[in-house]
Order: sequence, then structure tokens, then C-alpha cells
Amino acid sequence: MFKKICIIGLGLIGSSIAHAARRAHPAMTVTGYDASADIRTRAAALGVFSAIPDAIGEAVSGADLIILCVPVGAMGEVAAQIAPHCQSGAVVSDVGSVKKSVIEAVQPHLPKDVIFIPAHPIAGTEHSGPEAGFADLFTGRWCILTPLEGTDAVVTEALKSLWQSFGSIVEFMSPKYHDRTLAITSHLPHLIAYTIVGTATELEKDIQAEVIKFSAGGFRDFTRIAASDPTMWRDIFLNNQEAVLDILQRFNEDLTALQKAIRQGKGEELFDFFTKTREVRRRIIEAKQA
Amino acid sequence: MFKKICIIGLGLIGSSIAHAARRAHPAMTVTGYDASADIRTRAAALGVFSAIPDAIGEAVSGADLIILCVPVGAMGEVAAQIAPHCQSGAVVSDVGSVKKSVIEAVQPHLPKDVIFIPAHPIAGTEHSGPEAGFADLFTGRWCILTPLEGTDAVVTEALKSLWQSFGSIVEFMSPKYHDRTLAITSHLPHLIAYTIVGTATELEKDIQAEVIKFSAGGFRDFTRIAASDPTMWRDIFLNNQEAVLDILQRFNEDLTALQKAIRQGKGEELFDFFTKTREVRRRIIEAKQA
Repeated sequence: MFKKICIIGLGLIGSSIAHAARRAHPAMTVTGYDASADIRTRAAALGVFSAIPDAIGEAVSGADLIILCVPVGAMGEVAAQIAPHCQSGAVVSDVGSVKKSVIEAVQPHLPKDVIFIPAHPIAGTEHSGPEAGFADLFTGRWCILTPLEGTDAVVTEALKSLWQSFGSIVEFMSPKYHDRTLAITSHLPHLIAYTIVGTATELEKDIQAEVIKFSAGGFRDFTRIAASDPTMWRDIFLNNQEAVLDILQRFNEDLTALQKAIRQGKGEELFDFFTKTREVRRRIIEAKQA
Repeated sequence: MFKKICIIGLGLIGSSIAHAARRAHPAMTVTGYDASADIRTRAAALGVFSAIPDAIGEAVSGADLIILCVPVGAMGEVAAQIAPHCQSGAVVSDVGSVKKSVIEAVQPHLPKDVIFIPAHPIAGTEHSGPEAGFADLFTGRWCILTPLEGTDAVVTEALKSLWQSFGSIVEFMSPKYHDRTLAITSHLPHLIAYTIVGTATELEKDIQAEVIKFSAGGFRDFTRIAASDPTMWRDIFLNNQEAVLDILQRFNEDLTALQKAIRQGKGEELFDFFTKTREVRRRIIEAKQA
């Protein structure tokens, strides 16, 4: 369906899309652009892009699909930059972890004859940069599309097919519902992981060494999450503020209750809470998400 | 050094010790006991125990090493039960995740001619019960010994050698320092994971299904930790109250600061915090603990 795609932002996700597109569609033209000259050079060295010009307009020109793979906070500015270069009927999509604010930032900049279909592949690693990308990043992973009302179903199906060709399982959702779901499944866990690892960095030097040494007891799993890209996550929290703060408040209430139960030595309360959480793990295993 | 060892408590850790001992020391007698008749039957079916009698005294009798593998809160009671049956010069050890309270609970019950050496293998899975045990659970994992002052070095070395024969790397530490280190590396991460998964279970039914479905975004990692044995973790929090509440307070301060930064849209503050946590991951990878 798409003969020439253009990827703006050549980090982990952008370069992984190029790898996946190159593998699934050898005849497809895949151009790329990144604001950083260093990243452009490094991405070109991967050998998966057809061209990575120094001007964004040149990369966008003639593309029937442009995918914005920049941090959520940069989406609006990039949309403004590509707008004059988009051909009539071109599809613009993105990979942002927040959908409502990205739509608000991108949509006003795009010409009326360009079709914007927001998307979010739920895939990633703790590594960043073009070299971190690989063709299998999306294999077996969800990709959520949040098309706006009145979007041509044929075009939506074309984007769905593209993600399926990368190995993704595609799901449709409203932007608001997406943001609320992701606040719980991804944004809050990342915030908590960043916090706990940050707390450890402020301990006295001697015990910090022990924390590194004995991290296998649970802490280690949090450090992997807390090694994710700082710019990306700053933007996610700033752009999904409402949903994140709402779920964070619920979390705080539960944590305060557990803190009180520990302080007051209420074993039964702790036991009941810890039993109920086991059930969630069982359901995740049943849903084959483990 | 040890010809007959007796394991009290035949869950994940107890049965893994039996598997490891059977593999490393085929000639060793390994008896077992569990307060539950059902667990005794299931553990006997594993075929790794020399005997699992119905009376605790019979299991302990003639053993030169008795390892208590029961929840931290049951250690004192079990010590009282085994005390009359311990032979002179026998070594008693444990596997509890808290050391100070276990020493206080166990030591007073033991006869003067019995040597208590507290231990904590930092190993486990989210699975419980005798069937969850396996010989390699301790391979390449730390085992911390916290011997009391005046303990015969020869005996301590013997216990160290035994854990090394199971594949563990042995480290010595004071009980108090152990409890503080583990509060950070293991107890707080578990408390946080239990909380976040608990928070999700109280959401409306429809979004709960989405949380399960899209758990791969970070939430899933927490559910694994939050599926750990509820009795074991209840006891850990009740018995390491002081260190856990102290680190929890620091965590709460950091979380409140991040919450405020999100609410006030302070991007630079978030970015700086998320950058600092990356460094911890790098150090864990350098220490080969990743």
C-alpha cells in the first residue's frame, strides 16, 4: 500500500521501523531524518535506509507515509516542519506513548489533504539510539491505533496492515482510553521505578555499593526500567499529566495503607493484600502476556 | 563436613536445598519435615529426601546441621520445637530474609551446645511449594552469612563450603547491615510491586481487562514480583519494620517531589532525575549483576 515511507526521528523506534520495513518490504523506499547530524550519520551507517538527507523537506518529499518517531514533546514542532512538504493524500502517523496531547499538537499543523492516524507500538528496550534498533522489536507486540473520527477506513486498514507486516498485533482504541490504560500499565510503573532507583542513589556511599552488589533481590528489575530514555519519559509525564496524577494518587493511598499496616503490625491485612495481587499474575499468564 | 542435614520447611527454598545437596553430596543423608502433612507427602514424592518423618524430633535426631526454611515469623516456634532433639555440637542455620529478628527469635530456644549461624540465600522465584524447588536455584547467587560474635570459625567455614557446593557465592555481614541492605534491594521493591498491582485490582472491571492485555509496558514486571508468597512477605515486613519504614519514607519524599514536578510541568527537574538513575543501571551491568 505504501511505496515510500519517511521516518522522522532515528532512535530505537525509528531505526527499528526501518529494519522491519526493509525486511518485510524489500522494494519499499525508506527515507529518514533526524535533527541531529550525528544521529543521521550513525543511522545511515546501519545500511537500512534508502536515504537520510540533511533537509527534512527532502526526506518527506514524495512519501505516502510519514511516521513521527520523536519524543512526545517534539511532535508539534516536527509536524509544523513537515507540513509544507507533505504531498496531497499523504498519511502521517506517530509512535508516541501519549495520544491525546500528540493529536492536539500535530493535527492543527497538517494540511487538510493529509490524513493523520495516531499510533503507539507498545515495544521498546532500555537502550536508546539508532544502533539499538532491530527488525524484531515489534514482533508479537501490540500496536494501538487511535484514528480520529471520520478517518477513511481504507487508509486505516493500510496502516494496520503495515504494522502487522512488522509482526505487531493491532488494536483500536480512543485516544483518551489509550492514555488512561497506558498511565496504569506503563507510565506509573516507570515513574515508580525511576523513584526507587533515585532513592537508592541518595543513600550513603558504603551502602550504595551493597545495593549494586545485592540488586538481584528485586531492585535490579527496577533499574532496567529506570534506564529508559530520559527525554522520552519527561515528555510522557508532562503530556499525560492528568491520567498519571490520577493513578498516582490511588497508588499513594494504597501505599499509605500498607505503610500503616506495617507500622501497626497488622499481619492479616498485609496477607490479604499480598494474596489478591497473586491473582493478577495468574490472569496475565492466562492471557499469554507473561 | 556435614553427614546428615535436616531441612525444616519444605517449600521452594527447603526443597531446592534438598535437590542441591542430593546433587553435590550423593552420600549425604537429607531428612525433611514440614508442619503440613500434605506438604510432607508432596515433598517425599520428589525423591530427593532420605526420609520425611511425621514427627519433627525424628527428622532432627542425629543431624549435624538443621536448616530452618520456614517463614520468618515461624522461626522462633520451630526453634523451640527442635531444641530438645538437637544433638550436642549440632549446627542450626536458617534462610530467613531478615536476620536481626530471626536471631532474637531463635537463639534463646537453643541449647548452649548447639551453634546457630544465621544465613540468607538471595535466591527465589515467584513460585511456591515443594514442586517449585530445583537444584540450580542457588547457582551463581549470593548467600549472606551473619554469624554471631564468638562463633567457631571452623564451623562457619563448613557452612560456607556447603553453600558454595550449592553454587552460591558466600558473603559475611552483620545482621543489622544485612537487614538495612535488603530493605532497599528487596523489601521495598516488593512492597512497591505489591502496591502497584493492588492498585490495579481496584480499578473498574473494563479497564482491568486492558491492564492485563497491555501489561508488557512495564506493569508485567511488577506482577511477577507481586506473585511471591504472601506469608513469607507478611513476615518480612513485620520483622524488618524499622529498616523498611525508614527507606519507605525516603522513597515517599522522592515520589512526592516527582509528583509535584509533573503537576507543575517542571521538565528539567524530571529530566535530571531520570538521567541520574541510568547511571545505577550502568553500575549494575559493570558489577555483572544484570
